[in-house]
Amino acid sequence: MSMTFIINSMWVLIASVFVFLMHAGFAMVEIGFTQSKNAVNIIMKNFVTVAIGVMCYFLIGYSIMYGTDVGGIIGTDMFMLLGKPDKLNGISFDAFFFFQAIFAATCATIVSGAMAERTKFTSYIIFCLVATTIIYPLIGHWIWGGGFLSERFGFRDFAGGTAVHAVGGFCALIGAYMVGPRTGKYKKNKPVAIPGHNIPLGALGVLILWFGWFGFNPGSTLDITSSVTIHSAVTTLLSAAAATLSSLIFSCLKYKNPDAPLTLNGALAGLVGITAGANEVSFVGSIIIGILSGIIMILAVEFVDTKLKIDDPVGAISVHGVCGTFGTIAIGIFSTDGGLLYGGGFSVLGSQIIGILICGVTSIVLAFITFGLIKVTIGLRVREHTEVNGLDNIEHGISAYINL
Amino acid sequence: MSMTFIINSMWVLIASVFVFLMHAGFAMVEIGFTQSKNAVNIIMKNFVTVAIGVMCYFLIGYSIMYGTDVGGIIGTDMFMLLGKPDKLNGISFDAFFFFQAIFAATCATIVSGAMAERTKFTSYIIFCLVATTIIYPLIGHWIWGGGFLSERFGFRDFAGGTAVHAVGGFCALIGAYMVGPRTGKYKKNKPVAIPGHNIPLGALGVLILWFGWFGFNPGSTLDITSSVTIHSAVTTLLSAAAATLSSLIFSCLKYKNPDAPLTLNGALAGLVGITAGANEVSFVGSIIIGILSGIIMILAVEFVDTKLKIDDPVGAISVHGVCGTFGTIAIGIFSTDGGLLYGGGFSVLGSQIIGILICGVTSIVLAFITFGLIKVTIGLRVREHTEVNGLDNIEHGISAYINL
Amino acid sequence: MSMTFIINSMWVLIASVFVFLMHAGFAMVEIGFTQSKNAVNIIMKNFVTVAIGVMCYFLIGYSIMYGTDVGGIIGTDMFMLLGKPDKLNGISFDAFFFFQAIFAATCATIVSGAMAERTKFTSYIIFCLVATTIIYPLIGHWIWGGGFLSERFGFRDFAGGTAVHAVGGFCALIGAYMVGPRTGKYKKNKPVAIPGHNIPLGALGVLILWFGWFGFNPGSTLDITSSVTIHSAVTTLLSAAAATLSSLIFSCLKYKNPDAPLTLNGALAGLVGITAGANEVSFVGSIIIGILSGIIMILAVEFVDTKLKIDDPVGAISVHGVCGTFGTIAIGIFSTDGGLLYGGGFSVLGSQIIGILICGVTSIVLAFITFGLIKVTIGLRVREHTEVNGLDNIEHGISAYINL
Repeated sequence: MSMTFIINSMWVLIASVFVFLMHAGFAMVEIGFTQSKNAVNIIMKNFVTVAIGVMCYFLIGYSIMYGTDVGGIIGTDMFMLLGKPDKLNGISFDAFFFFQAIFAATCATIVSGAMAERTKFTSYIIFCLVATTIIYPLIGHWIWGGGFLSERFGFRDFAGGTAVHAVGGFCALIGAYMVGPRTGKYKKNKPVAIPGHNIPLGALGVLILWFGWFGFNPGSTLDITSSVTIHSAVTTLLSAAAATLSSLIFSCLKYKNPDAPLTLNGALAGLVGITAGANEVSFVGSIIIGILSGIIMILAVEFVDTKLKIDDPVGAISVHGVCGTFGTIAIGIFSTDGGLLYGGGFSVLGSQIIGILICGVTSIVLAFITFGLIKVTIGLRVREHTEVNGLDNIEHGISAYINL
Repeated sequence: MSMTFIINSMWVLIASVFVFLMHAGFAMVEIGFTQSKNAVNIIMKNFVTVAIGVMCYFLIGYSIMYGTDVGGIIGTDMFMLLGKPDKLNGISFDAFFFFQAIFAATCATIVSGAMAERTKFTSYIIFCLVATTIIYPLIGHWIWGGGFLSERFGFRDFAGGTAVHAVGGFCALIGAYMVGPRTGKYKKNKPVAIPGHNIPLGALGVLILWFGWFGFNPGSTLDITSSVTIHSAVTTLLSAAAATLSSLIFSCLKYKNPDAPLTLNGALAGLVGITAGANEVSFVGSIIIGILSGIIMILAVEFVDTKLKIDDPVGAISVHGVCGTFGTIAIGIFSTDGGLLYGGGFSVLGSQIIGILICGVTSIVLAFITFGLIKVTIGLRVREHTEVNGLDNIEHGISAYINL
Repeated sequence: MSMTFIINSMWVLIASVFVFLMHAGFAMVEIGFTQSKNAVNIIMKNFVTVAIGVMCYFLIGYSIMYGTDVGGIIGTDMFMLLGKPDKLNGISFDAFFFFQAIFAATCATIVSGAMAERTKFTSYIIFCLVATTIIYPLIGHWIWGGGFLSERFGFRDFAGGTAVHAVGGFCALIGAYMVGPRTGKYKKNKPVAIPGHNIPLGALGVLILWFGWFGFNPGSTLDITSSVTIHSAVTTLLSAAAATLSSLIFSCLKYKNPDAPLTLNGALAGLVGITAGANEVSFVGSIIIGILSGIIMILAVEFVDTKLKIDDPVGAISVHGVCGTFGTIAIGIFSTDGGLLYGGGFSVLGSQIIGILICGVTSIVLAFITFGLIKVTIGLRVREHTEVNGLDNIEHGISAYINL
């Protein structure tokens, strides 16, 4: 084994561990931004997501994503990692799988947030199974596994702006639409704010996610010897910082006070927005992407809430779906390697738009089928009695907090 | 210095930092799963554990564990690291000590959970002193420091399934037994559930522990150039995921609803269960160990609670003691290097059983003597008035929460 | 690129990520040790600090700190990193900037804690802009950027005991003095305790900070091939452990019970105290520095509270200002390279005292001017109505907690 092989494997191992902590971040954000009566349910969904994500990806998902390609559509071997090689992409195969498996669960987690507080536990689990076995691996194959999007269209997605975030966001859109808004969310057709119950935990979650993103993005090079790795760490930092400020200022202008949930989501918007292109935009480019992500997210939250009338308790559709899409397209404009602003014409931009359209439609269709089948069989939604009294007491027989 | 020396030292340094965060994980789990009136006391015990663990290990513990061996029983020099070499085991000595010192405090922390909510602060501190000065280092010497268990019996314990977790769990068993159950825990000889007061913090703690375990297990090779390091990261991930699911399903079958504390402890059970053999079981083997750990933990919790009638507020005896023991023995069955299922016969299995018996008996005896001496001198237990009103207000003059 | 270049860049990248999580630590400590009615305000200030810190440092601060030196006073080029080199100090320039940018925000964060619960959000933001654009970079230039303090006086500050902590602490002193104590803090000229509202979050924050410090100090070598890197990890661990115990024991002797906030701050005091000299004191030296830091911090807290009558809700002045100063001076005594105890005479000690005096006076003057200008223009302090009812409800239109 060469020294390069060893340190790259080591880097991917460490980056994976950073990414793992993101599951704590997702859990805290989701808990913090929802009601106290459903906190245990959210915890259970987050733990199950990690566990099912890892198991399904090990058993089947990895094969679909990175198995031998058939027709540019799907991978077809290495179920349960049988016949796995020792190395892949210049690093230890085990390190590669470790990174990918921890990634896999992220996509489903996004959906969990948007459907929080009224979705049946078992129904979510079934979706989680499908998402980490099929939806994410299939689209991941198209983008990263030798499939047609990257090979034929030259579609670019560095660290999952589309593969993880936009796909997760689109599934979240369908899920939140099909399960319907929380009871009391719309009165006389107007949205009622249902504030989160524990902003400190939510803030902790955002900072943990930001921390983990430094594994998520820079780790995606799989190569610490490349200057791109550290470049992408800096663009990730700058975009998140810029988005935090733009969402703070924009929320102040729009709503007349510095809004905490929007500012926290602003940081996440900047992180999602830079994910697709962190490797190929300049530092200034990453700041512009961040600024725009923070503003777009706020507009999207309002649009989803008041126009689409889809109830997304944590803003997952806007943060992950909309900013993931924006960041993917932004490559066509800001990439120093073929972006519009760098004299690259419309070819990269075109590929990016085609790619995100195909991934968007696919994830919407697959999510629609999955949630539709769940809805007509076991049902998506808990009973109103359960929702009103809280999923924690009724479904889990426990309260999140006692005597605080 | 060779490049291998440098990157291995770097890896151990980084792994140690991951392990350090586990102390935050232990603190949050223990806080979350107990009552709000004792949260500050638990925090104080966790901080003191880290501080005393590090100091005692520096002053004496390290010498007993890794000093020059006498008779296979005990190390005898390098007190305060005097005469320390520059390198050891192919890495920087300082990196080796850093890793070991952060490890050392873990064993005592386990005991703190089982004795929570009724143990005197000073009594716990004294035990903590003994545990990190003598109990853990002595048994650690037998297993890792050139002592008789590894040298003569070929006993195997990769990352502390026995040395840390089983030993911690056995001491916890004795401690919880000797201090007696919390007031009101048993009514008419039947256990009464005393639910934890902050499940979100408990869940955060479990995820932080899971994160830190990726330093705890893979770091134990002290060698990032070995493929075993990353292999053990994957087995750790798979076992924890499998145990989360098995404990969820088993608790649903047994108690008719998805139980949060048991599922969270399930993840920990899988992590403990794989610790001894993470390096030498296959991926499928790690999943089986995880599945069994999750189930065994639930059975053990019930057994301790209803049959032994020992009050263990956080399930530490079952999670660490029982699953640590199970995982140690499981090497004899699932090891690809001499396990029963791989045609290795009974020799490895035999060594493992002998080893865990010796460590179990030793830690039980030492814990019994230590707690016994404390009990007959300054006493183990706070007064009932203190317990009922909460240790925070009476012993620390403060409340954990105000105006939430 | 040489292998040394690559692994050193990798190490600094990873250390930076550790340091980043400290922002979560600072947020949790500050939330936990203040009142629930101001938790959202604190969160907002912490997020804005990170965001503004990173942006200002990118735009201007870095240039002042590390741009081409003029007269030993100030750096003058590389605004927005224009004209940046590929490598610096033997590592990737991007890695160096990444580390520095994450550091930069720390200094302002310290001030946020001391002025918590009564400072206007916009006023704090303006100070934060000034601190990360000018104050920290200027003094940082003198110490690390080729300025006169290191070059002419031989002033030593390994990881920011002065540049970050003492400077932050002195600014905090001026800020807290000028904004005045919280309403109700002094009754009949005597201080009234206003206890923190969420000690578990505060404890979590301290442990996260401790974790991050293993990036903060050892990362500051920028060189993992040096044995100093891991040496400084061990001294950091030992000092923090020793300070935890010394503050626990000293608070028990002084106040008759084991005081949680003082013990938690004790750990931080040990971390701050060792920061300046972690690279050049022995293990035993680090323990002595830790023990003294823990005690000095408690004395300083009492002095600030009862003699100066400056209201510092989280003890930031004592932890960062006083212990940062102490640790910087302690180099002159305990350094194995020229310290008084090692036969070095008074020359190092003299340099250290001169250096800290210059940095102290400078930061006090700059902070005084900045806060003075803010006070006479937009004002520093919220209205009493806002303070009494909580900044969260009045300034941010939200509560930190609902229905816990």
